[in-house]
Amino acid sequence: MAGGVGVGTSIILRLDMQKELVTFGQIATAIGDAGGDIVAVDVTRASKNSTIRDITVNVSDQHQADSIVVSLGSLAGVKVINVSDQTFLLHLGGKIEVTPKIPIKNRDDLSRVYTPGVARVCMAIHEDTSKAHSLTIKRNTVAVVSDGSAVLGLGNIGPEAAMPVMEGKAMLFKQMAGVDAFPICLDTQDTEEIIRTIKAIAPTFGGINLEDISSPRCFEIEDRLIEELDIPVFHDDQHGTAVVILAGLLNAAKVVGKSLENCKVVVTGIGAAGIACTKMLLAAGVTNVIGVDREGAIARGVTYTNPVWNWYAENTNPLVLKGSLSDVIKDADIFIGLSGPGVLKVKDVQSMAGDPIVFAMANPSPEIAPEEAEPYVRVMATGRSDYPNQINNVLCFPGIFRGVLDCRAAKITQEMKLAAAKAIASVVSEDELNEYYIIPSVFNQAVVEKVSEAVIAAAFESGVARRKSQREPSKEHDYK
Amino acid sequence: MAGGVGVGTSIILRLDMQKELVTFGQIATAIGDAGGDIVAVDVTRASKNSTIRDITVNVSDQHQADSIVVSLGSLAGVKVINVSDQTFLLHLGGKIEVTPKIPIKNRDDLSRVYTPGVARVCMAIHEDTSKAHSLTIKRNTVAVVSDGSAVLGLGNIGPEAAMPVMEGKAMLFKQMAGVDAFPICLDTQDTEEIIRTIKAIAPTFGGINLEDISSPRCFEIEDRLIEELDIPVFHDDQHGTAVVILAGLLNAAKVVGKSLENCKVVVTGIGAAGIACTKMLLAAGVTNVIGVDREGAIARGVTYTNPVWNWYAENTNPLVLKGSLSDVIKDADIFIGLSGPGVLKVKDVQSMAGDPIVFAMANPSPEIAPEEAEPYVRVMATGRSDYPNQINNVLCFPGIFRGVLDCRAAKITQEMKLAAAKAIASVVSEDELNEYYIIPSVFNQAVVEKVSEAVIAAAFESGVARRKSQREPSKEHDYK
Repeated sequence: MAGGVGVGTSIILRLDMQKELVTFGQIATAIGDAGGDIVAVDVTRASKNSTIRDITVNVSDQHQADSIVVSLGSLAGVKVINVSDQTFLLHLGGKIEVTPKIPIKNRDDLSRVYTPGVARVCMAIHEDTSKAHSLTIKRNTVAVVSDGSAVLGLGNIGPEAAMPVMEGKAMLFKQMAGVDAFPICLDTQDTEEIIRTIKAIAPTFGGINLEDISSPRCFEIEDRLIEELDIPVFHDDQHGTAVVILAGLLNAAKVVGKSLENCKVVVTGIGAAGIACTKMLLAAGVTNVIGVDREGAIARGVTYTNPVWNWYAENTNPLVLKGSLSDVIKDADIFIGLSGPGVLKVKDVQSMAGDPIVFAMANPSPEIAPEEAEPYVRVMATGRSDYPNQINNVLCFPGIFRGVLDCRAAKITQEMKLAAAKAIASVVSEDELNEYYIIPSVFNQAVVEKVSEAVIAAAFESGVARRKSQREPSKEHDYK
Repeated sequence: MAGGVGVGTSIILRLDMQKELVTFGQIATAIGDAGGDIVAVDVTRASKNSTIRDITVNVSDQHQADSIVVSLGSLAGVKVINVSDQTFLLHLGGKIEVTPKIPIKNRDDLSRVYTPGVARVCMAIHEDTSKAHSLTIKRNTVAVVSDGSAVLGLGNIGPEAAMPVMEGKAMLFKQMAGVDAFPICLDTQDTEEIIRTIKAIAPTFGGINLEDISSPRCFEIEDRLIEELDIPVFHDDQHGTAVVILAGLLNAAKVVGKSLENCKVVVTGIGAAGIACTKMLLAAGVTNVIGVDREGAIARGVTYTNPVWNWYAENTNPLVLKGSLSDVIKDADIFIGLSGPGVLKVKDVQSMAGDPIVFAMANPSPEIAPEEAEPYVRVMATGRSDYPNQINNVLCFPGIFRGVLDCRAAKITQEMKLAAAKAIASVVSEDELNEYYIIPSVFNQAVVEKVSEAVIAAAFESGVARRKSQREPSKEHDYK
C-alpha cells in the first residue's frame, strides 16, 4: 500500500516532444489506449524543434500509470522527463510554513515586534526566564525530533528522508490541537550527541516529541532528556502507541465483559513499543502479561543481552511461562502484536480463551490477516485505516501535548498517559460501543479536548503542572 | 528609547478591587487625575468581596503610566496585579506560528501527507538526498540561530531572552521575502558545541542565519560552518550590517561626487561588524581603510592578542597611521562608527576632508548626535529610524536568503554580498538620490526583488548555485 499511487488518482507527465517526429494527437492516443484520461495540458517551455508539456492524466492505479509511461517511451520523438502524482505534488516545497501572527504594517509595528521595542520584552525574560513560557513561542511549540533511524516501517533512511513524516506530524499537531510543531531531523545517530543537541535547542520549545528513533537508543535518549530537561519529552512510537492500545483494550474488555486487570495478555515484539505497551498495562493494573520475542517468551531466570529484557523478565510473566508464542498463547484473553506479518496463526487464536481480543498492529501487514482471524476473534484491531478499530497515534499526541503545554507540565507521568488512554476510550459512548467500534476516529474532534483535559487534571495530581490552565490564552496577563 | 512605552500607547492595568473599600468611580478619577484616558474595562473574575478588572488606559508616555500605577497603589482596597502594554500584549504566546499549507480534510488527505502515502516521498529522498531541497521545507526554510550572547545592545542575556528578537526576525523573513524562518536559541555558548548542534540540525534547513553571537566566537563558528555545511551560513550582525553600510556608502559617495575607491575611510569599533564592514570595503575596491579601537589605530608592526586584529593590521591602514581617532580622522572622507555613543567629536568632523560622510551606527545613541554633526557633515546615516538614512539589516537578509534559496546556493560569497549592496543602492534612483535619501525604506518592496536577483546572478558567477532559479516554485517538477 505504501508503495503505489492511490486509487483513482492523477499523475502529471512532463514530456519533451520533438515537433518533427510526433504530434500531440499521437501522444493523446497512446495515453488513451493505455487507459489514461487527459484532464489538463500545459506547455512549460517551447523551442523551435521541441516543446515541453505537462500533461495531467487521471489513472486508476499505479499499474496503469506505469503502462502509460512505457507506451509513451516507445513513441519516437517523445521523452518522458518526469512523472509525478498528487502525493508528490503535495510535498513540493514542504507541507508546513512559518507565518507571522500579525502583519508588520508600518514602522510603529516594526518597532514593537523588533527593535527597539522588543528589547523590553527580552529584558523581562532575562529577569525571569519562566516568562519565556508566556512571551515567546515556547508556550505553544513542540519540536518533533527524529534521527531518521527507524522511520515508519522503512528503517534507517536518514534525516532528510524522515522530514516528510515529521512535517506531516507537524500538520496534525496544528490542525488537531492548535499546537505549533516544528520538525528537527538530526544528522547524527549517536546517543550522546542526540541528547546534547536536543538539550541545546530546548530553550525554543515547550515540549519535545521524539519520533522514529530506533531501539534501544530511544530508551536512553528519552530517559536522559526527561531527567535533564524541564519540559516534557515524549517518544511517541513508545508511549503514543501504548496509550492508544490501552484505550482500545479498555473498550474491548468492556465489549467482551471481562475485567482488563484479570486478563492474560500476550505481547509479541518486545522492542520500544512492546515495552512501553507492557508498562502501560502494568500501570493499568494488569498483572499477567507475557512478552514474546524471537527467542520465545521472556521469563525470569534467563539472562538476556538486552538489559531492558532483564527488567522485562523480572516484571512480567508471573507464572514464568516458557516456549514459543503458540505455547504461551493458550488461554490468553488478549493478544497484542507489535512484531511482524503472519506471526499469529489461526490455531493460536483458536487456543485462546473465549471471546479473544486480537490487536495485530504490524503495518501494513498485520500479525494475522483480519479476514483469517475474523471467524475466531471477538474483537480485532489493527494499525490500518481500511479495517475497523484503527489504533492510530494521531488519537494521542495532539491532545497530550495540548494538555502539557496548557498546564506547563514539566514531565509526562505514567498517570497522565493512563488518563489520556481513559479519555480516548471515553469518547466512544456505551451506546455506540461494539466489536467494530472500540476506538474513535482520528477526525473525532472530541478526542483532543477530552485527552487534554484529562492530561491536565492528571498533571496537577502528579505535581508536575506549573500553571493553572486557561483555555483561552488571550485572556492571560501573567507576563509582567 | 528601548526602555520605555512608545509614544501615545495604551497600557492594560489588572486591578483587584475590594468592593467594600473602593468604587470604580474612585479608580476612574485617580486614573484621570494622573492623565490617563480609560478606553476599555473588562471584568475578568468576580467574587463576593472583590472583582478583578482589566482596564485599558491610553497614556502619553512611560512616566504617565508610572504615575497612574503609583496613584492607584495609594488607594485603599486596590491592588495593581499587573501592568502591561501593547508591546507585551503583542508578544503573548510568541509572534510566529507553524501552519499546514493545506488542510487535512479526510482519510484520503491524511494518507497522502502522512502514512502510508508519505512513505514513497521518504524513499524518493532516501534514494537521492538532494530531493530534500524540493520535497521538504528545506527548500524555503532558514534557521535563525542565536546563543543569546550579544543580543541587540543588551549583551549576554541568554537564549530564552533572545527569542523575541529571533521571532521578530522570522516575521520579517516571511513578510518581506516569503522565507520560512524558524528561531533556534541555544542553551550553550561553547564554540564547538554550537558548531556541532547547528551541523546536527542542518538537514531540516536550506540556510543558517546566525544572529547575536558575540565576538570573537562568531568568526570561528561561521567559518567552520561555512566550511563544513553544504547550505549557506550567514552571520547577519557581520555581513548584513556590512552589506547595508556599503549600499549606503555607494550612494553617499555619488551624492558628494567622490569615487569610493579613492576615499580615506576610518572605521571605529573593530569587532564583528567592523571587520566584516572593512572586508566589504576592501572587496569593493577601497584601499585606504583605517580601523580604530580602544587602543587606537590598528597598524602593522604591533602584535595584538586578538588574532583577527593581526590580520586587520596586515590588510588595512596602508600608510601605517598611528594614534587616536582624532589623530587619524584628519582628511578622512568617510567615518563609519560601529562602536559606542559619543566617540566622534565635532572637532573630529571638522578635521575631515570636504563633504564628509558620517555613518554613526551605535544604537540607540550614535557616535555623534546627528544634531551636533549636522552643520559640518554632508551626508549622515545612523541605525535609527527617527533620522534620515537608516542603515537597517532588514534591507539585506530577506533578499539575500530569498536569492540563495531560489538558486540553492551552497555558500554566500563576497561577490554575492557585493551584489546585494549594489542592488540595495540601486533602488534609490538618480532622481531621488540626495543627502537625506541614500538608502531605501525597509518597507520598499523593490529591495527584496532586486537583492535576490542580484544575489542569484552572482551565485551563478561564483559557481555556488546548484539550481536554475524559477521564481514560481509551483511550476517546478524536478522532484521525481
